[in-house]
Amino acid sequence: MDAVLGATARTRVRRLPELAVADRAMLHAVLDEGLVAHVAVVDGHHPFALPCAYAREGERLLLHGSTGSRLLRSLAAGVPACVTVTLLDGLVYAKSLFHSSMHYRSAMVLGRGVAVADELKEHALHVISDHLMPGRWEEARPPSRKELAATAVVALPLDEASVKVSASPPDVDPDDEGWSPWTGVVPLQLQPGMPISQDGIPVPGYVTSPRR
Amino acid sequence: MDAVLGATARTRVRRLPELAVADRAMLHAVLDEGLVAHVAVVDGHHPFALPCAYAREGERLLLHGSTGSRLLRSLAAGVPACVTVTLLDGLVYAKSLFHSSMHYRSAMVLGRGVAVADELKEHALHVISDHLMPGRWEEARPPSRKELAATAVVALPLDEASVKVSASPPDVDPDDEGWSPWTGVVPLQLQPGMPISQDGIPVPGYVTSPRR
Repeated sequence: MDAVLGATARTRVRRLPELAVADRAMLHAVLDEGLVAHVAVVDGHHPFALPCAYAREGERLLLHGSTGSRLLRSLAAGVPACVTVTLLDGLVYAKSLFHSSMHYRSAMVLGRGVAVADELKEHALHVISDHLMPGRWEEARPPSRKELAATAVVALPLDEASVKVSASPPDVDPDDEGWSPWTGVVPLQLQPGMPISQDGIPVPGYVTSPRR
Repeated sequence: MDAVLGATARTRVRRLPELAVADRAMLHAVLDEGLVAHVAVVDGHHPFALPCAYAREGERLLLHGSTGSRLLRSLAAGVPACVTVTLLDGLVYAKSLFHSSMHYRSAMVLGRGVAVADELKEHALHVISDHLMPGRWEEARPPSRKELAATAVVALPLDEASVKVSASPPDVDPDDEGWSPWTGVVPLQLQPGMPISQDGIPVPGYVTSPRR
């Protein structure tokens, strides 16, 4: 797997192509930092984008949900899907409103999912758990046979993907002459707060300092 | 406009219907807190989900972008679209992996966009600016006629929408007996960091304490 990102007609970044990143390591980094993807599918000629937890394992994405979930059933059936993960990194205050923008890293993966076979489901759920809650698999109650049967897992290969990264300082423009508002960037980051304990047990280190 | 949320077959929440919220105030609150939506459209039978800045004005969403943007052109042409805004509020550590989950608020709006007429574009951009960077419109260089002409704005009515809110404490299960890992919630929030100034001008109050 060393396909170039954005290599197909439908993953080539057309808007602001200078923000396209061809490096597969950036695709992995964005997917590994995100916690929720937006998964788009078509149902009755209408598009739907639904939030979904996921994890990356090598060159594929793993998505899970209830076997009763319409989205998971569609994905398992192999309908065309788009999985997008966007990390919002900041607000960019340029001198002009026109050039004001956002810093972000966004990965888009196109393709068709494949249902993960029953005997491989537990491993896949372990990978997802390690991504979302590293360290938890070793301590929490593992899935029962019944729970595994009620859970669907779908794998989507990272064969066709694109990554767009906006990280430049505010643009200046000849038209800005005479205007001198503050310019700069306000960084944004999804930050954990103080854990809210349900019981009297001390908060474990893997919760306070997860190694994602 | 007092349509009930989730009232149509395709916006009725099927998975975990107990998380569905029928209150339009919650739809507004989620849309007003989010900064980036994922917009899904169909192109060549394939779904695409793309991140997009937006703002809510009354009972409609406003989306903007370059007139050269394929997404904005499609939306302005009135293709079926789905706009989803998800706020990730926390990680929920239950005793079991099966019941472990996330706290979130997610709003989904279905419909067809309408291009905002030229003479109303500046007002729409003002609304978007006030949402993303409150206070900025009054200080930054306003859009020139050329910049306005290069910007497309699309309005999407909030006629058909659903909202799902997950905010409950970790589930317990009879199968958990004998297991006693820490349980609780790690809150997550998109937090601003220290502004990075591009010049020596003091950071204005509307940047350090935006009133969104």
